[in-house]
Amino acid sequence: MEALKVNSDRLWDSLMEMAKIGGTEKGGCCRLAATDLDKQGRELYIKWAEEAGCTVKVDAVGNIMCTRPGEDMSLPPVGSGSHLDTQPTGGKFDGVYGVLAALEAVRTMNDNDIKTKHPIEISVWTNEEGSRFAPAMMGSGVVSGRFSLEEILDSKDVDGLRLGDELARIGFAGDEPVTGRKFHAFFETHIEQGPYLEAEEKQVGVVTGGQGQRWYNAVLTGRESHAGTTPMHLRNDALIASSKLVLKVEEIAKAHPPGCGTVGFMQVMPNSRNTIPGEISMSIDLRHPIDEELSAMDADLKAAIKEIEESGPNIELDPFWYYEPIHFNQDCIAAVRKATQDLGYSHMDIIAGAGHDACYVSDFAPTSMVFTPCLNGISHNEIESTTQEECEGGCSVLLNAMLTMAEVV
Amino acid sequence: MEALKVNSDRLWDSLMEMAKIGGTEKGGCCRLAATDLDKQGRELYIKWAEEAGCTVKVDAVGNIMCTRPGEDMSLPPVGSGSHLDTQPTGGKFDGVYGVLAALEAVRTMNDNDIKTKHPIEISVWTNEEGSRFAPAMMGSGVVSGRFSLEEILDSKDVDGLRLGDELARIGFAGDEPVTGRKFHAFFETHIEQGPYLEAEEKQVGVVTGGQGQRWYNAVLTGRESHAGTTPMHLRNDALIASSKLVLKVEEIAKAHPPGCGTVGFMQVMPNSRNTIPGEISMSIDLRHPIDEELSAMDADLKAAIKEIEESGPNIELDPFWYYEPIHFNQDCIAAVRKATQDLGYSHMDIIAGAGHDACYVSDFAPTSMVFTPCLNGISHNEIESTTQEECEGGCSVLLNAMLTMAEVV
Repeated sequence: MEALKVNSDRLWDSLMEMAKIGGTEKGGCCRLAATDLDKQGRELYIKWAEEAGCTVKVDAVGNIMCTRPGEDMSLPPVGSGSHLDTQPTGGKFDGVYGVLAALEAVRTMNDNDIKTKHPIEISVWTNEEGSRFAPAMMGSGVVSGRFSLEEILDSKDVDGLRLGDELARIGFAGDEPVTGRKFHAFFETHIEQGPYLEAEEKQVGVVTGGQGQRWYNAVLTGRESHAGTTPMHLRNDALIASSKLVLKVEEIAKAHPPGCGTVGFMQVMPNSRNTIPGEISMSIDLRHPIDEELSAMDADLKAAIKEIEESGPNIELDPFWYYEPIHFNQDCIAAVRKATQDLGYSHMDIIAGAGHDACYVSDFAPTSMVFTPCLNGISHNEIESTTQEECEGGCSVLLNAMLTMAEVV
Repeated sequence: MEALKVNSDRLWDSLMEMAKIGGTEKGGCCRLAATDLDKQGRELYIKWAEEAGCTVKVDAVGNIMCTRPGEDMSLPPVGSGSHLDTQPTGGKFDGVYGVLAALEAVRTMNDNDIKTKHPIEISVWTNEEGSRFAPAMMGSGVVSGRFSLEEILDSKDVDGLRLGDELARIGFAGDEPVTGRKFHAFFETHIEQGPYLEAEEKQVGVVTGGQGQRWYNAVLTGRESHAGTTPMHLRNDALIASSKLVLKVEEIAKAHPPGCGTVGFMQVMPNSRNTIPGEISMSIDLRHPIDEELSAMDADLKAAIKEIEESGPNIELDPFWYYEPIHFNQDCIAAVRKATQDLGYSHMDIIAGAGHDACYVSDFAPTSMVFTPCLNGISHNEIESTTQEECEGGCSVLLNAMLTMAEVV
């Protein structure tokens, strides 16, 4: 079968229509999880999915499952989906593109009277962003078993409102169980949220996995003293020590390409102009797609800390979170790569730098992702931008990858 | 005349007696300017000064002047003094030692029936600390002409109370003018507030001047982006830039001994664990006793900033305060050095790292200071500590230096 293309205008129109719900003055979107606006977005999605012939179910954590029948309904479906919730000052594409690309794939199957052996299931996962309720990726995380349903429904927003109650309030506390979910294959389409595709001038990223992450908190203790009366050689300046550590984190990441190392948070005490800082709290974020490399970065960090401690300060390192690298399924990756090649798009293999619902789905199902470029790599921002052509490209790749796995009959 | 020694026990007893006013549980002192406790401290001081035969006057900014007559009352007095106000969690010696050493010098002159050609004037300067009312060194600053009387009396504490009103309330809005004040010579005795004397095992510091200071604010602008999806080579991390600058400030100070360079304040934006910092605000404090060296440090800082800017960030430097180095009077310095030698104390020349009333007095009168060691160089802290012997040493030096300049008859 020749590679199919989706209806570019219809996909774009749906994106723009959905973006009106919670649309911001600066052209972004604020549609936080389990709010009235999330309800509106979900209802519009369900209306469109039903118009496309899908049957719709909602599970106990509010995930929406829309099924297009397959020839053999005893087989697990081929799935695709992402999320409708956004950051408070989010864009029009992060997540939304993934659920509307899945819908457009179904719509194009309908246009072409395509029948598949496996059913098709397109899904909206609850609270991927983790903005209103933490942590992130709740819906997919509950289904994968990473979180218990109870703890997630009990999580509260800053006003003390419970997710479980809020889902019930907007009519999305469903009755489908969160366990026993199966996919023959699962694909998620997403804007890259980074600059690689743009820098390499590629239309499509074939996502082969997700980076491993190690998160740390560090507290550096020196000695507070008077900035005017303490000579340089008698100081124990915690900010000097933390500055060395910041540069070491950068050096470590650069020594392990394509690893990333970031200090995003730092607090200086007492933070007074003429007092030498006595204590610094800081975060350290190390990422690498290969676990051995990530472990080597961790060892380098510990060695760097030991070295910096020799110059005076005490450094307490708390390695409080480890998230192993994710390797997507080879058949799913191959299906995406083949679809890209068949459609004649320029492409490159890429690793997901951020977390996505597909990362949790890959715990229990063969999974891969399709990335498309986003302007200047900017995301989680109202100015997040991509083009109709780029959206169409990724969506057509998704459609053909899904058809490969669902087996056209 | 042979070198005289003061009454060590009497000096120490007075220090301990004064420390009860505002004494804290941890052994420190909280006696903020123009409070009821300040009033009590001032009244006790005046009582003691009057008992020592002084006549007492108070000027319009609350400075207390206690005069021991000289043979020729038409000559300007030889002065000494410091302050009675403390930091909120201050110690028993910072400032207080200087006013009680001046008093003990007068008491010892009385004990020995010493008459001087010049009158002796011991003074308590208002609000040296600048804690309750900013800026610091108000009393001496008004007399030197650095501040206008009006602006200082109008300064308000955090509760909106006016210094002028508070001085009137505690009975210390005097009627002596703040202008036209003269000294034949002025000396201030003070704990070092730094670690040099202790490190060098010297009993007395002969203070030859005060450091020059250049204060800056810097804002470093990079580009916020996602810590997981932005590769190292495409980042513009403002915290990396600021870390380089912190280390450069240290390097510059070390290259210009005995200069000091300190970043005491830093604020990271958005200060979120997985976002690359886009903007940093920081303070820079450069100090050096020699103006040419301080200028060279300033030039080095600007060159360092230019170099760091080449790696990506924009850096705005605001050099908002310059305080030229102070050179004390050679005759006054010589009088202190001679007294120290005559008394057989180990000593070294030293530069005042912090500001003192004597620095402003030196604007209009020949001035010098006497430093004594303080435990671990710690000050502005309830655990600030020194010994009776150290206090006695500095006070005896003060007495003999004053007598040299006042001319014993």
